Amino acid sequence: MSTFVLVHGAWHTGQEFEAVAQPIRDAGHVVHCPTVAGNNPADDRRIGLGAAITSIADYLSENDLTDVILLGHSYGGMIITGVADRCPERLRRLIYWNAFVPNSGECLNDMVPPHYVAMFDAVSAASPDNSVMLPFPVWREAFINDGSAEMAQSAYDVLNPHPYATFTDAISLNVNPAEMEIGKSYINCTEDTALPQSLGWHPRLSEKLGLFRLVQIPGSHELCFTEPVALAGAIMKAGRD
Amino acid sequence: MSTFVLVHGAWHTGQEFEAVAQPIRDAGHVVHCPTVAGNNPADDRRIGLGAAITSIADYLSENDLTDVILLGHSYGGMIITGVADRCPERLRRLIYWNAFVPNSGECLNDMVPPHYVAMFDAVSAASPDNSVMLPFPVWREAFINDGSAEMAQSAYDVLNPHPYATFTDAISLNVNPAEMEIGKSYINCTEDTALPQSLGWHPRLSEKLGLFRLVQIPGSHELCFTEPVALAGAIMKAGRD
Amino acid sequence: MSTFVLVHGAWHTGQEFEAVAQPIRDAGHVVHCPTVAGNNPADDRRIGLGAAITSIADYLSENDLTDVILLGHSYGGMIITGVADRCPERLRRLIYWNAFVPNSGECLNDMVPPHYVAMFDAVSAASPDNSVMLPFPVWREAFINDGSAEMAQSAYDVLNPHPYATFTDAISLNVNPAEMEIGKSYINCTEDTALPQSLGWHPRLSEKLGLFRLVQIPGSHELCFTEPVALAGAIMKAGRD
Repeated sequence: MSTFVLVHGAWHTGQEFEAVAQPIRDAGHVVHCPTVAGNNPADDRRIGLGAAITSIADYLSENDLTDVILLGHSYGGMIITGVADRCPERLRRLIYWNAFVPNSGECLNDMVPPHYVAMFDAVSAASPDNSVMLPFPVWREAFINDGSAEMAQSAYDVLNPHPYATFTDAISLNVNPAEMEIGKSYINCTEDTALPQSLGWHPRLSEKLGLFRLVQIPGSHELCFTEPVALAGAIMKAGRD
Repeated sequence: MSTFVLVHGAWHTGQEFEAVAQPIRDAGHVVHCPTVAGNNPADDRRIGLGAAITSIADYLSENDLTDVILLGHSYGGMIITGVADRCPERLRRLIYWNAFVPNSGECLNDMVPPHYVAMFDAVSAASPDNSVMLPFPVWREAFINDGSAEMAQSAYDVLNPHPYATFTDAISLNVNPAEMEIGKSYINCTEDTALPQSLGWHPRLSEKLGLFRLVQIPGSHELCFTEPVALAGAIMKAGRD
Repeated sequence: MSTFVLVHGAWHTGQEFEAVAQPIRDAGHVVHCPTVAGNNPADDRRIGLGAAITSIADYLSENDLTDVILLGHSYGGMIITGVADRCPERLRRLIYWNAFVPNSGECLNDMVPPHYVAMFDAVSAASPDNSVMLPFPVWREAFINDGSAEMAQSAYDVLNPHPYATFTDAISLNVNPAEMEIGKSYINCTEDTALPQSLGWHPRLSEKLGLFRLVQIPGSHELCFTEPVALAGAIMKAGRD
């Protein structure tokens, strides 16, 4: 029996991981799906990356979780990297699921193509609270390309505006991911075009982990909606010793 | 119910799409499989790219087709790009299936490796009518690598000499594909080595579409022969809204 | 009915191919799984690449095998390339399974990333007989990433120290693989991270074969342990005419 903590990506909350958590629980494990500070409905969107990381580090300590298999999706890779740097003693393994892998001094925007940065800059400037949303056509074509039109719309409807400072704040680490002395896995969905595949997740970002275990699975960036049971299986393969 | 028009690649005719069309029709859609001018048995092989594009644009207007999901395979990507530039009002979405994606001023030969151009130059020069054929070993190993020897031979036997000017004529477009205001999908067969994967279809050519939907499926460049039902499924996923 | 000869990779013996050979035999073929000189329990680990190649060339002639489909896994690609150069008249087709493809004058170490060479240099220098082993964490995470912890351990337990000179000796060929007049196939396991995918097996090494047939299959570098039946199926597809 292992303890998994699943950290969602931008625009999501922990609630969107519940359908993934259930098959993992059915296999006998404990699964937590916390929501990162800044993504709860009532949260101030002016929160920065440091406070977002703190919220998950605090979640682990408040629940006294140890030997944790900590997964981050997309933006969640920034969070779990920061948590691993702050409290490695609570962790057994990191799993990056199509997630950003930052070295110290990097921000999320350093790892996305310029046209995304330009889009985010424009959208956040037009927002009342420095938050960003994805235009629906980008979501439907590049993020949830394996879903039906109906699923794309219903999933879009549960997204929340994301605190943009968490994309522009550089992370500060004592140890870069490649040097972290902990098991590391990377789950790559082979049809994930949320980043263009010429400037993609794997191997461009995965190999920043140094020695890591690769698990690949068909599907888009939003497999938590389109194939939650298959994703749960990949997580258990990525998480085992 | 949607209307699909499937445009074949070089050396093929529309007939080779019939086994793919059937499962799409069985799902309730209308499917047309026209043959591009220059590939019918009686056609003059000295035809150029402009006339080839015109033949499919004319097909749409003569049949008064609207809201069309227009698919092009391989060389067919040249055709559907030209059709989309000329009569966008008839189209709902473009689907490129391991297809060339030209910008204005490019010809097909600009997107293939030099050893293919040299081979095509030599074969066409030796032909009576500036046409090209594929040597069987290239077809068997690099185009239909997932088929049996028997299927490779029987499929080769239905190929027709291809008008080489359609490879060397530059396309002239008012709008490049990335700027076309229409849904665009790219189907990539993951074992397609008709182009070497270091200079391959996806993401090298797919990303010329700008925002597009990726659908991937196992198989070779000639899935219309080796797995027509699976290809039909991918086309329906690529074609939906 | 065909005759297959399966040549194992570094640290392995022919015995580890028996579970792969059985389904091929069940399909009516003859399958040989010789052990390359230097990898038998009693062999001197100071053996070089030339003697290793000779041992398999001798195996073919001693058993008077002709029309052979000769497969090499990983390091075995060095062996089968050398055998094909010496006795092409005995061969029908070469199959490289996530294998090295050398041109004349290259050694295996020329095709691996610098951090592997540094690791091998250090390990061999500390050995009594210029042999190398893989550290277990590298094996578990990067070689057999699709297996359970138990399978990773039990497979590791049957590995043997590998003669390091076979990695550092340059091969001498009359004809480079791209110019060899014989059928050539490459089987690529899509989750093989034994080489980092940014400096990987396919297409980086496969395309040194010139015209070749690609067969891809999910799994790690050690599919002979994790999915021997699926590997057998891929080998039969790669080996047919």
